[in-house]
Amino acid sequence: MEKQTEQNSRRTRSGPRLDRSQRLAIDQLDWALPSYSDHPVQPVSEDDLQRIHDTSMQVLEDIGIVFLNEEALDILAKAGCDVDFANQNVRMDRALVMEMVNRAPAQFTITPRNADRMLTIGGKNMVYSSVASAPNVSDLDHGRRVGSRPDFQNLIRLNQYFNCLHFIAGYPVEPVDIHASIRHLDCLYDMLTLSDKVVHAYSLGSGRINDGMEMTRIAAGLTEAEFQAKPHMLTNINSTSPLKHDWPMLDGAMRCARRGQAVIISPFTLSGAMAPATVAGAIVQQNAEFLAGLVLLQLVKPHAPVVYGAFTSNVDMKSGSPAFGTPEYIRAMQISGQLARRYRLPWRGSVACAANYPDGQSVWESTASLNAVSAGHCNMVYHAAGWLEGGLCASFEKLIMDCEMLQQMIYLNRPLDLSDDALAFDAIKEVGPGSHFFGAEHTQRRFKDAFYAPFLSDWRNYEAWEEAGSLTTEKRANAIMKDILAEFTPPPMDAGIHDELLDFVNKRKAEGGVPTDF
Amino acid sequence: MEKQTEQNSRRTRSGPRLDRSQRLAIDQLDWALPSYSDHPVQPVSEDDLQRIHDTSMQVLEDIGIVFLNEEALDILAKAGCDVDFANQNVRMDRALVMEMVNRAPAQFTITPRNADRMLTIGGKNMVYSSVASAPNVSDLDHGRRVGSRPDFQNLIRLNQYFNCLHFIAGYPVEPVDIHASIRHLDCLYDMLTLSDKVVHAYSLGSGRINDGMEMTRIAAGLTEAEFQAKPHMLTNINSTSPLKHDWPMLDGAMRCARRGQAVIISPFTLSGAMAPATVAGAIVQQNAEFLAGLVLLQLVKPHAPVVYGAFTSNVDMKSGSPAFGTPEYIRAMQISGQLARRYRLPWRGSVACAANYPDGQSVWESTASLNAVSAGHCNMVYHAAGWLEGGLCASFEKLIMDCEMLQQMIYLNRPLDLSDDALAFDAIKEVGPGSHFFGAEHTQRRFKDAFYAPFLSDWRNYEAWEEAGSLTTEKRANAIMKDILAEFTPPPMDAGIHDELLDFVNKRKAEGGVPTDF
Repeated sequence: MEKQTEQNSRRTRSGPRLDRSQRLAIDQLDWALPSYSDHPVQPVSEDDLQRIHDTSMQVLEDIGIVFLNEEALDILAKAGCDVDFANQNVRMDRALVMEMVNRAPAQFTITPRNADRMLTIGGKNMVYSSVASAPNVSDLDHGRRVGSRPDFQNLIRLNQYFNCLHFIAGYPVEPVDIHASIRHLDCLYDMLTLSDKVVHAYSLGSGRINDGMEMTRIAAGLTEAEFQAKPHMLTNINSTSPLKHDWPMLDGAMRCARRGQAVIISPFTLSGAMAPATVAGAIVQQNAEFLAGLVLLQLVKPHAPVVYGAFTSNVDMKSGSPAFGTPEYIRAMQISGQLARRYRLPWRGSVACAANYPDGQSVWESTASLNAVSAGHCNMVYHAAGWLEGGLCASFEKLIMDCEMLQQMIYLNRPLDLSDDALAFDAIKEVGPGSHFFGAEHTQRRFKDAFYAPFLSDWRNYEAWEEAGSLTTEKRANAIMKDILAEFTPPPMDAGIHDELLDFVNKRKAEGGVPTDF
Repeated sequence: MEKQTEQNSRRTRSGPRLDRSQRLAIDQLDWALPSYSDHPVQPVSEDDLQRIHDTSMQVLEDIGIVFLNEEALDILAKAGCDVDFANQNVRMDRALVMEMVNRAPAQFTITPRNADRMLTIGGKNMVYSSVASAPNVSDLDHGRRVGSRPDFQNLIRLNQYFNCLHFIAGYPVEPVDIHASIRHLDCLYDMLTLSDKVVHAYSLGSGRINDGMEMTRIAAGLTEAEFQAKPHMLTNINSTSPLKHDWPMLDGAMRCARRGQAVIISPFTLSGAMAPATVAGAIVQQNAEFLAGLVLLQLVKPHAPVVYGAFTSNVDMKSGSPAFGTPEYIRAMQISGQLARRYRLPWRGSVACAANYPDGQSVWESTASLNAVSAGHCNMVYHAAGWLEGGLCASFEKLIMDCEMLQQMIYLNRPLDLSDDALAFDAIKEVGPGSHFFGAEHTQRRFKDAFYAPFLSDWRNYEAWEEAGSLTTEKRANAIMKDILAEFTPPPMDAGIHDELLDFVNKRKAEGGVPTDF
């Protein structure tokens, strides 16, 4: 575990970066909650944003959203919505929607078992998580395969290790070697013991989400009242676009909201497939589906912490394949940011790509995504490290590569030194024409911390790079990944709490876990 | 040659993109002069920008710039500058500097032999060129080697082929198999016959730049008066930072300015080496060196078209290696944009990287550069396709990869459809909950042009990608590169003009070309 206590030192470790035999894993930025420093990009005018909003309201008023959940239908009917119980379709007017939007907090915290890892969600803050929910996993040594618990655990270790990853947004890979009825118990146990960062539990049936909340409460040593007093974990629900919220997602979201935990509502609005084949139309639909979910949760629990989830991308029209990091994705993310700010809500986006290998395409798609969500001031960035294949694979090497890019984005958003000393008139005068700044006192004073120092980039000249084996980025990432896993130490956990957590897991396993037949 | 006459069709070619045997090279965007649609990122406040400006003025007033050129010293002395002829150092006051800044045009055109390829430089316009001035070249088939004329010609062909590349910013690779005394003659001949886009001539001695201008004039079929009436080509000069302008660069810049041609002045201010180890200090120095050059050219030829060249990056402090696409580079580019806008001048930046192979690192460094210059509204982007190794190598595969990224940036900046039809209320109503949009009339109408369609991305699922040979991005780029070169046809040139051009080349070769002893 790399948690830093010395706030003065910019880097975790010093020493030569290129002689890997002489150092421990990597230099990395300290743990911190970064925030955006530039103004957000706003591709849509205020008038057009109003038109998008109005059209979403028209969808909610005239077409409606299907809620496949009797309890939700009852709650919405009681609040005055026009509920068609036969078709489970709910229409709601814009006055109610905006009243509920105004109930939701613009910013809130999530406090995991280690309070130093508390996140503030909203405003100008950004937090990142690694890839979540991939069925497959890959590395250069063993290729691509379905996920297993050892892979799951190693990905959790990496998510814990990197200070640029702030929370765990789900299972980085699905460990299919654990039976689905008890998988959530082992996974939550691993997440809560191998990491002390904010964790996520899936809203896939009442048993799973209840167990997830309970294990988070136990791991943090909280009473139920303390647990409910503020968010300690989160869940994410997806609509079944177009225009439908499913039973288990709604059930889990309502359970989380009732116990004061954070809920992200992320419509799955792939433009051209589950949403119109225009960015504007897909955003209208995303917005309507999100707002419908928010209304329900604010009725269930006023002021429940809800995050505006944006996942709109587009398909390849020729093949139907989902695409990510496209120009359409960039605009969809930035407009989502505009809407979230309009509603004064935190928002969640993703760093996504469609590539099958951690190569050039994977990086231009991921950097396009990262730049898009950053330019739009995204507060929670899912899948920010390790995502490949449109989310079908968690790549160990890609995770390392993405962390390099995330660090650079965090560093970029730090304040620039514009002091008189930084403007360097005296240094320029001292050095004078035709000389160089290597030996200048102004340079020497800054030797260690003048510039961002990457842990993965190879800046040697071609000859030196070739002599060292012509290692491409993903191969260097592979070596670093192994170093980190070799060095990894789990964060400390009180023995009594650990016992209680393990007892809970064993008890629930003995009870058979959760049903798997839905 | 792929020049388009049908402005209505968005793409050059249609047909299945993945079955490469059945199509001609690639689909690409039409030739167009793109412009920026978002507001520029401005990392520095107006007050701090003023402080940077003031410090640059202090450098020019109190320290001065060395001009290694007697003619330049005389011109500057006559204009009232404080010239130390013994040390060739020139100090100038801010009143003169700002008078000359105000003389320079905020926007101008460059018209090559094909007037349809005219560029407008300045304002919100962006134009891209491929890599320039690399000593080495590489491709996956033949590895890395020093440049030769066949490589040079193939890179010119690619620069001509891609509609996202608007001009030729120098020799993409130095063809060292041609003797230096006559190399510029063969290179200009190749550029002017294999391409009809704007070309660049090097300011490396009076003979070379004079020949370059003369050949450009001949190729365009212009009288000397017509040639001088407006810019038809460009040169770029670099200062020898810190604080020095060299003889051949100044000589060439003055010759170009006198004949009405465009000059870019790009200080080579690597922070921590030839400039202070702070972004702010390096920018102060870049700005002073640029402005000193601009003053000279506005004295030589009032209203001469001058471009603010920004090349500030930083070195790796541990090794001294130059780095590109770093957080420091991003900020340096964006602040350069702020300064250029303050001075109402067009500005030039670069897409640069330090990587040794067209892999992940090369792409994150290049996309960081591209995003930086785009966010800062850079008007002329040098090295935008094919640059590797900090400029020491032109990569064929990287060129193809970069063109994919450039196309996406161009497409991103197109207006977003926010019409009522795009907002898609009727389509959402038609499709309804739980269905999909594949067959919707709204989708079918947009089938061909709904979304950006990349020519290089592989969006197939993993199994299909694996079955097709697990081709990584650079391997797919390699195949596309060969297809394009096989298909390439040079743009037409009048036979009489071609004879005149060839006669000029032969005459100058017979005269021995240019001296090579400086």
